Amino acid sequence: MTASGIDALKAALPAKAWTQDADVITPLLREWRDKYFGQTPILLTPGATDEVARAVAICAEHGLPIVPQGGNTGLVGGQTPQGEVLLSLKRMTAIREVNPVANAMTVEAGATLHTVHEAARSENRKFPLTLSSEGSCTVGGVLSTNAGGNHVLKYGTTKELVFGVEAVLADGSVFNGLSSLRKDNTGYDLSRLFLGAEGTLGIITAATLKLFPQPGHVARALIGVGSVADAVALLTRFRGPALAMFEVMPRIGLKAVTDNFEALRDPFTDAHPWYVLTDFEVDSADQGAALLTGLLQSAMEADLIRDAVLAQNDTQFQALGAIREHMSAGQKFLGGSIKQDITVPIDRIAEFFDRADRRVQTIVPNCRPVGFGHFGDGNIHYNIAQPASDDMAGDRPAFLAHWDAVSEAVFDIVDDLGGSISAEHGIGIMKRDTLARRADPVKLALMRRVKYALDPANIMNPRVMIQDFKG
Amino acid sequence: MTASGIDALKAALPAKAWTQDADVITPLLREWRDKYFGQTPILLTPGATDEVARAVAICAEHGLPIVPQGGNTGLVGGQTPQGEVLLSLKRMTAIREVNPVANAMTVEAGATLHTVHEAARSENRKFPLTLSSEGSCTVGGVLSTNAGGNHVLKYGTTKELVFGVEAVLADGSVFNGLSSLRKDNTGYDLSRLFLGAEGTLGIITAATLKLFPQPGHVARALIGVGSVADAVALLTRFRGPALAMFEVMPRIGLKAVTDNFEALRDPFTDAHPWYVLTDFEVDSADQGAALLTGLLQSAMEADLIRDAVLAQNDTQFQALGAIREHMSAGQKFLGGSIKQDITVPIDRIAEFFDRADRRVQTIVPNCRPVGFGHFGDGNIHYNIAQPASDDMAGDRPAFLAHWDAVSEAVFDIVDDLGGSISAEHGIGIMKRDTLARRADPVKLALMRRVKYALDPANIMNPRVMIQDFKG
Repeated sequence: MTASGIDALKAALPAKAWTQDADVITPLLREWRDKYFGQTPILLTPGATDEVARAVAICAEHGLPIVPQGGNTGLVGGQTPQGEVLLSLKRMTAIREVNPVANAMTVEAGATLHTVHEAARSENRKFPLTLSSEGSCTVGGVLSTNAGGNHVLKYGTTKELVFGVEAVLADGSVFNGLSSLRKDNTGYDLSRLFLGAEGTLGIITAATLKLFPQPGHVARALIGVGSVADAVALLTRFRGPALAMFEVMPRIGLKAVTDNFEALRDPFTDAHPWYVLTDFEVDSADQGAALLTGLLQSAMEADLIRDAVLAQNDTQFQALGAIREHMSAGQKFLGGSIKQDITVPIDRIAEFFDRADRRVQTIVPNCRPVGFGHFGDGNIHYNIAQPASDDMAGDRPAFLAHWDAVSEAVFDIVDDLGGSISAEHGIGIMKRDTLARRADPVKLALMRRVKYALDPANIMNPRVMIQDFKG
Repeated sequence: MTASGIDALKAALPAKAWTQDADVITPLLREWRDKYFGQTPILLTPGATDEVARAVAICAEHGLPIVPQGGNTGLVGGQTPQGEVLLSLKRMTAIREVNPVANAMTVEAGATLHTVHEAARSENRKFPLTLSSEGSCTVGGVLSTNAGGNHVLKYGTTKELVFGVEAVLADGSVFNGLSSLRKDNTGYDLSRLFLGAEGTLGIITAATLKLFPQPGHVARALIGVGSVADAVALLTRFRGPALAMFEVMPRIGLKAVTDNFEALRDPFTDAHPWYVLTDFEVDSADQGAALLTGLLQSAMEADLIRDAVLAQNDTQFQALGAIREHMSAGQKFLGGSIKQDITVPIDRIAEFFDRADRRVQTIVPNCRPVGFGHFGDGNIHYNIAQPASDDMAGDRPAFLAHWDAVSEAVFDIVDDLGGSISAEHGIGIMKRDTLARRADPVKLALMRRVKYALDPANIMNPRVMIQDFKG
């Protein structure tokens, strides 16, 4: 049955729209953290929505499950097939329309985030989602995973930046929710269902995205602070229409970056326990300088900050940003890392660190927490680096064996504080069983009912996010 | 069976949570436009979520359908029972939490929008949904209908102002999506399903709403313009982070208000074909004056505006706003009115008026279009007043008999322009059959599958939005 399904796909699609060449396929079967390795009988590379629809209809007919893939930058194993058909959207890259009057852009799923930024900029508009992987990650991928990033604080998560989507459903029909209408009260918000669904309800083939005015100027500062509590107090003071980014890094994280990347240096003379990188979107450089100087002065008087540098030109602006962008890369120099992507209510961030830092020491004594990230959204990448030792490479596997124990301990605290065990990376394979164990049974039952309603044969990215979906 | 179901409800609920007293019930069976009149065997007035859950479980057991009701301000008949159990949320009015650090408020479904505004203001925060009915309409109602209003332009529609909801499902279980987390990627966006679902998927009992900083100052102007095209050109010039409202009214609408409400007067010496009422949220009165003066001067030089008045104090601010707020009331003095609530893409608003104004004259010669509203969102309340005559009252029924023909003609143009036949009022009973005829079959099929997944026995607000939902 499978063989005839594969044959049917080959017969129905243009030659450019499929391959079984291992040289082409293999790179798509491993992801960059080297945590997941996959296999597939065939790679589909449709060039248009109707080809995706035709492929899905054939898969449905033959009971062939499908894993959709964008830029292969996902971090939870959701894009890696284990015997399923692999459907890459990478050939569907068209910008269908940029409409500066409606502040909207319609773009196909395989376009990279970088392409979207460029297309928006060419019309003097801004698409505010920014991720370090913007050169590789695709629209379909970031929408399907509801990727987060640094500007959620001001502009919302990815799903809030979308007017609607076009998606191929599990029976091969095409749902068209593309529209730039800001008001449309004609039924359920169906487009929204596909955002963050990790491909389990259908395959996003295109989307109409929200654009925003380009800010006249972005004022940036890096600020040394004494504690997490001081960083959160600063956040409350900084809040307002201009605040566009509020990222926090610990000393160990900044040092790993500035010690190991020659081009990046610590702009401060003294070491500080924590660092805040913050952006304000304003009309002009003068307005930005006035706003920042005022805020910093008053925070200094309140004893909330220890030192601060303001970006005075584009070079300094990029240099400060690069420190934050290299946080993940920098941690590789600290050895193995047990990574968490969690949210807690903003007013409980300090409490989270207090409890989690103590708790993980009881599991791996002398481990080194490197908790950084989007504190403005309550989102902490609470990564734990292995203890420093003489044989870092040798000790790495033993350290990483604690992954599940550390995760469970951290998740217990997150649940207790009313947080989320997945802030922006999603569930995928990595957290599927954890979600099943920890989530509200009513929520899980509702998810299963929705999944079953849209994909009763479970061919759309099975194994991901939900299991036993008929539950 | 029905009788025993009603008896079971009476037995299971506290005495305060139900009544069959016609004096109490009757006012809830008619809505303010006098278009829908209903009937019900019993009114339920639960005081807490667990009472709602108990009531729904009993209704499910006995196959009793339920119509939920908030402030009874809906305009499409969605809140009026025709033999169903009527479940009013009006006794559930608690503000459960206001959290200014997380910029979030958790409130029960029966609280009025006015109560929410007051609670936000008390913490120096803003909940940006504003409707003329704010003293009566409730959180559950505005969320279930995704009500629009005047500030969508800046802050988004109601569903964009919600972190999550608590809802009682069709089997009586309680879904808890209350949370103020800005990032939570643990599955489908289930809360969103209930927003704009008009009670067909479950009953919203509480919600966590997004709060925003109170702007330092709101600068308001009323501007006379020569045409719809000039108004749209002005919108493009005004766009930016400060623009918070952009409402447009025709001469006939403004005149009906200022001629008939003694307290309200036309602030201009000359008559103008169209009027724009606009707000800018800024830090200070000085900043607002500078911004507005600059924008108006440059628009004047581009020949886009004919005259303008700036609100110089709170009295003038309120007076200008009151003209817009009285648009619907003013139209009552023009006789019968055939009302449309539609959206078209912003860059096609002028084309819409051009085509629609000509088209409706072929159906009712000398009818008087009064198209006004939220042009910043492409949302037009395209109301048609009856022709002026010697016997306005007598001619009214004959005029209103054209309602469906006028609607169909307008909807044809809307569909052709890629618009929406319901911008902010919803589908309810009024547009249910129109939606079934006009919407994309794939979309309708998807809506039916979702409805069936969540409410297979169709007891949650049946008759509304969807029909033949097993389709």
